[in-house]
Amino acid sequence: MSRVYNFSAGPAAIPDSVLERIRNDIPDWNGAGMSVMEVSHRSARFVEVVEKAEQDLRELLELPDNYSVLFPQGGATMQFAMVPLNLSADGDMVDYVLTGSWSRKAIAEAGRYCNVNIVADSSDRNLTYVPAEGTWQRSDKAAYLHYCANETIGGVEFPFVPDAGDKPLVSDMSSTILSRPLDVSKFGVIYAGAQKNIGPAGITLVIIRKDLLGRARAITPGLLDYATYDNSSSMSNTPPCFTWYVASLVFEDLKVQGGLKVVAERNRSKAARLYEAIDESGFFSNPVQKDCRSWMNVPFTLREPLLDAEFLSQAELAGLANLKGHRSVGGMRASIYNAMPESGIDALIDFMQEFERTHG
Amino acid sequence: MSRVYNFSAGPAAIPDSVLERIRNDIPDWNGAGMSVMEVSHRSARFVEVVEKAEQDLRELLELPDNYSVLFPQGGATMQFAMVPLNLSADGDMVDYVLTGSWSRKAIAEAGRYCNVNIVADSSDRNLTYVPAEGTWQRSDKAAYLHYCANETIGGVEFPFVPDAGDKPLVSDMSSTILSRPLDVSKFGVIYAGAQKNIGPAGITLVIIRKDLLGRARAITPGLLDYATYDNSSSMSNTPPCFTWYVASLVFEDLKVQGGLKVVAERNRSKAARLYEAIDESGFFSNPVQKDCRSWMNVPFTLREPLLDAEFLSQAELAGLANLKGHRSVGGMRASIYNAMPESGIDALIDFMQEFERTHG
Repeated sequence: MSRVYNFSAGPAAIPDSVLERIRNDIPDWNGAGMSVMEVSHRSARFVEVVEKAEQDLRELLELPDNYSVLFPQGGATMQFAMVPLNLSADGDMVDYVLTGSWSRKAIAEAGRYCNVNIVADSSDRNLTYVPAEGTWQRSDKAAYLHYCANETIGGVEFPFVPDAGDKPLVSDMSSTILSRPLDVSKFGVIYAGAQKNIGPAGITLVIIRKDLLGRARAITPGLLDYATYDNSSSMSNTPPCFTWYVASLVFEDLKVQGGLKVVAERNRSKAARLYEAIDESGFFSNPVQKDCRSWMNVPFTLREPLLDAEFLSQAELAGLANLKGHRSVGGMRASIYNAMPESGIDALIDFMQEFERTHG
Repeated sequence: MSRVYNFSAGPAAIPDSVLERIRNDIPDWNGAGMSVMEVSHRSARFVEVVEKAEQDLRELLELPDNYSVLFPQGGATMQFAMVPLNLSADGDMVDYVLTGSWSRKAIAEAGRYCNVNIVADSSDRNLTYVPAEGTWQRSDKAAYLHYCANETIGGVEFPFVPDAGDKPLVSDMSSTILSRPLDVSKFGVIYAGAQKNIGPAGITLVIIRKDLLGRARAITPGLLDYATYDNSSSMSNTPPCFTWYVASLVFEDLKVQGGLKVVAERNRSKAARLYEAIDESGFFSNPVQKDCRSWMNVPFTLREPLLDAEFLSQAELAGLANLKGHRSVGGMRASIYNAMPESGIDALIDFMQEFERTHG
């Protein structure tokens, strides 16, 4: 075996210790005589897994009792439709903050069902910052306020939790969930695709305040109604069992590491060191306003874009994989989710400094 | 390791050879330095997997060129909504055949969007047969005809492919797909949840005639529009990569076995031997009309239901797992999908005969 440092934005790295457990559970999971992929979702063994997963997640995030935890399929993109279908009525106004590619996609899908009011838009400066909350143009009639807490492509992170007043606050936290403690009580709905900080792609985490359940429009498919999941422990039909099981191992692993305060301190330090290396170099640069820089996704460009291909190929040879930036912004991007160890940051910084020395 | 014979209706057994490959690919997949769970869906390595998966599936089913292969999430239950949203307009009439629990659920979901005409209904005889096609009451105006080719709970299988005339024929083949060759050209849409004959739960196979794409209603969420998948090779957002990869291994394994004719002959023989053992005993019985008995799901009851619990516990001890019937029908059910070897049928028949001898 030869593992590399995987800087992919998602599907992203999974902790080695979790992979080891997955491997050991194939083809016989704890004496079941079968792998987790083959176990009935209604079996006592599997129900125990998902109950523990929810309990561990509740402890990690210190979830208040008036919040439900749901596990639908379809990733954050399916949530772009589920949010308006469940939280608004036909013709309602809804407030969205536009700070990057993912909030733009959420806005487009909401536009199918609602009148979308864009309260703030950072495209005037190429989606590199979060507009100050005082400048937002909100609608009095909005059914909810939606924002993307961390834009994976631009590497822009909200440095504050918006104040939605008495409206439900809805957040796409796909690439920031579980990176640090979170005051969930400020939110109506939090959702996250799994493939960054939770597990393999194919399952979605939704945390919803219980009073927001049961409001889906009549046209909502059964599997797009949050209440369907709440009423069935997310098992109204066969769930993505294996993916859910991996998520349960990741939650347990985070607890073993000491919980989200410990994880947050490591993530803060990892990001700070990488941004410092970028800022101190005359060769690499990050375009994001400093107070909005993501802890999870660090885009950077080379002074000489003609060297991009060589940078990437040498990085691959050095065991630093998937550093290519998103095609919409170019350059590089280092996604450094929870599973990226500090040694991976060291290796990347060393490589960047050596590259600058030989090519700068 | 101690593997059992797993008679679960789904999630169901996966071939040992496939599990071995999965295990070997963790944590380093073919020198990628990471597992399949961690690989970008846009990477050349992963794209190669899914292109080969489609090619293998096309060969197995001899798919005509005017059909697209799509891999959405949400299982057959999501298809219960996607079919009417994509193939009918508001207020349209649609034809459905009612032969069991799954067609009943499909009918309920379609009723959200259409006027459902039930062309035939076998609940007069407890969902144990398929009404003869000549007796069906079709609607001239129906947008399509829908049926469930194999009812997993009742163990009732269509012994014929219905003639839908010039209307699209739509079939839920979750528990029969890939069990034998199929003339796809008779169908408009075929769909199947993965967790029986394809792989782990969390991915869905949809085969659709291309002229039926691009007709989704305006209220259809982007991820519930078949065209979204067709336009993006099922990668408009992050797909369930690991599950898709396992499906690719299963397709390859079926080809190695000799294709669907070979698989069909084994499945026919497995089912025939089990039904024969049931019919010849005075102790076990199967309620399904003989020409509609499923090759994949064999429900049976004991003459003395008070012995059910003992039968199940002794079966577990004998390495025969998950024989309990669905709670809605009681008794036993042996699901004997492609991955159930003939030795599993032998072991089950031996066990049943011994149980009858000692308890009959």
